[in-house]
Amino acid sequence: MLKFEILATDTSSHARRGKLTLNHGVVQTPIFMPVGTYGTVKGVMPRSLREMGAQIILGNTFHLWMRPGLDVMQSFGGLHGFEQWDKPILTDSGGFQVWSLGSMRKITEEGVHFASPVNGDKLFMSPEVSMQIQTTLNSDIVMQLDECTPYETNGHKTTEAEARKSMEMSRRWAVRSKNEFERLGNPNALFGIVQGGMYKNLRQESLEALVEMDFPGYAVGGVSVGEPKDEMLDIMAHTPHRLPAHKPRYLMGVGTPEDLVEGVAQGVDMFDCVMPTRNARNGTLFTRYGDLKIRNARHKTDHQPLDPSCTCHACAGTEGVSWNDGGRGGFSRAYLHHLDRCGEMLGPMLTTIHNLHYYLNLMREVREALDAGQFGAFRARFKAERARGV
Amino acid sequence: MLKFEILATDTSSHARRGKLTLNHGVVQTPIFMPVGTYGTVKGVMPRSLREMGAQIILGNTFHLWMRPGLDVMQSFGGLHGFEQWDKPILTDSGGFQVWSLGSMRKITEEGVHFASPVNGDKLFMSPEVSMQIQTTLNSDIVMQLDECTPYETNGHKTTEAEARKSMEMSRRWAVRSKNEFERLGNPNALFGIVQGGMYKNLRQESLEALVEMDFPGYAVGGVSVGEPKDEMLDIMAHTPHRLPAHKPRYLMGVGTPEDLVEGVAQGVDMFDCVMPTRNARNGTLFTRYGDLKIRNARHKTDHQPLDPSCTCHACAGTEGVSWNDGGRGGFSRAYLHHLDRCGEMLGPMLTTIHNLHYYLNLMREVREALDAGQFGAFRARFKAERARGV
Repeated sequence: MLKFEILATDTSSHARRGKLTLNHGVVQTPIFMPVGTYGTVKGVMPRSLREMGAQIILGNTFHLWMRPGLDVMQSFGGLHGFEQWDKPILTDSGGFQVWSLGSMRKITEEGVHFASPVNGDKLFMSPEVSMQIQTTLNSDIVMQLDECTPYETNGHKTTEAEARKSMEMSRRWAVRSKNEFERLGNPNALFGIVQGGMYKNLRQESLEALVEMDFPGYAVGGVSVGEPKDEMLDIMAHTPHRLPAHKPRYLMGVGTPEDLVEGVAQGVDMFDCVMPTRNARNGTLFTRYGDLKIRNARHKTDHQPLDPSCTCHACAGTEGVSWNDGGRGGFSRAYLHHLDRCGEMLGPMLTTIHNLHYYLNLMREVREALDAGQFGAFRARFKAERARGV
Repeated sequence: MLKFEILATDTSSHARRGKLTLNHGVVQTPIFMPVGTYGTVKGVMPRSLREMGAQIILGNTFHLWMRPGLDVMQSFGGLHGFEQWDKPILTDSGGFQVWSLGSMRKITEEGVHFASPVNGDKLFMSPEVSMQIQTTLNSDIVMQLDECTPYETNGHKTTEAEARKSMEMSRRWAVRSKNEFERLGNPNALFGIVQGGMYKNLRQESLEALVEMDFPGYAVGGVSVGEPKDEMLDIMAHTPHRLPAHKPRYLMGVGTPEDLVEGVAQGVDMFDCVMPTRNARNGTLFTRYGDLKIRNARHKTDHQPLDPSCTCHACAGTEGVSWNDGGRGGFSRAYLHHLDRCGEMLGPMLTTIHNLHYYLNLMREVREALDAGQFGAFRARFKAERARGV
């Protein structure tokens, strides 16, 4: 089940404000989706995700297939019960992870043969297998199996002919994914994925073929795979707004806060990325006025929170009143610097909450700006503030 | 400031129910104190500690002196503001950690010369230095500097003559600690530490000399240092109940749930130990019916929580209703097994909450039994249940 309503559109860009209804609940868009690879968003309690307003999270089909395995998933009736998350979940197809195995896998038209990185077992992934696993996971949004077209391989940039071959196979896999999804009677929603590498004509072809198949939603894949920023922005400017206006659009694996706001302007409704969680663990924190490196010695005695305007648990404590508004319940930069230096778990626990809250709150501000018809002004102010530097 | 009232005493043992008032609040005893070495109880949010009813936590003087250092502590007015914990804090003297440096340190009557394990700086610890640091930390309970008498050194069991020499130096350091504590005008409470190794006559001598000095509270140190269990129980049976009845008694670094209940029966009011937090990270979980190893493959598909009678966040979710009472908001053994197997942070985050909750709840049950005049029956039931096996 999937229902999508457009609540408002922006006059200065392709941005739209939407409401997406799925089997496990409603998602207000544009939205950022935290990544929960192994059935957990790394370092965060489900209750913290709820508190910071996460509406939908990701799970990784490939990882969950390897561990804990489908028998366990089956016994819990899917991923929701296993990980204690009752709101919507989106799962990827597993294609990207299988593809990333490199020399450990062999891709054919039929599917991908590979050796399990956990125990060496010989395994096979295909559009049909991906649909079967995702049906067991009972995710609200299921992704078709596709082949992720690389930007380059060992220094060789993917040619148009290679990108076409890859895109065309993904298109045939889309058909097989859809057929299997329907045969299984999966009650959730299957998204098609536009491929075509950095070639706009191929993107257009891919898009048209998928639109013809009438998926309930569409993703743009194969970006943020090592290409220069301007080429990524080129594809972001080309593809999303050409997708059907009345269906949700998902830009896979993107990106920085700036990328998200730009993506919204290009008509994207949904984003996911490991950047906020991974950067948190590496000590790079997002703030209204730019990024902050907590490992920098200048934070050693700084009593301020990461972001004095932030209301997350790390910055504002349990009260939710920001430092700027007089709240003093949060944790200081000095304390977070110290936790990082000592390798204490509480460090990444707090910084992960902060970074995810930043992303989720950024999308909340985007939605409010769209509701108020002020997205253009918001976008300009956001860029200026972020460029100011912390 | 320290005020201690005895609210009830047990007729079948030396156990007592008390109320300890300190500068940062009231502590109901007997109590277990979670250990927060570097200004954080490993893997736990301060809010979780509050939720599970922690009344007082520990900080380690030596570690906090090394990192973040006294300049940072000074700027925060002590440890409370730095780590965002507004209830009482107890700090150790740093003696045990300096002593543990082994060949890196040299102990003399004056104090301990050692090289910083962080940066190699030549440093000096003495009773006076320990008091100065603990005064900067502004902990509610300050511990005298003592020398921890080892049970054995490289296979050589400490002789009575060696234990006496060590105990007598600790006694002289107690005098110097008290003098410096008073000179500094520290407004908190200083505890003396009974030493004497495994020799009861030395324990008795140490105790009498410290009682003469009229400390507001007393600790029993130098147990749980590698001695056989029966020797530990021997000291536990000898020393605590001989300490002044109207003052709080703290058994340092002990121990298992069984040790705690036995310690209460011997007249101990306060305990600390890294066991619940360390074991949680290693996958050994405490339950009403014994210990559970989450790494055991038999938990792979088990839908039950760690302890079906437990109301902690890991077992019962946010609702606080245990599995036995129909609650299904908690995390399953299967999920915790999976998190451990994948090395996911959420694993130790949840198991640490569970183990600390177990210890704190055990002490709550002890207090309730003492209030009801039922400690003897509680003690017997506790032993039988724990021995049953999970």
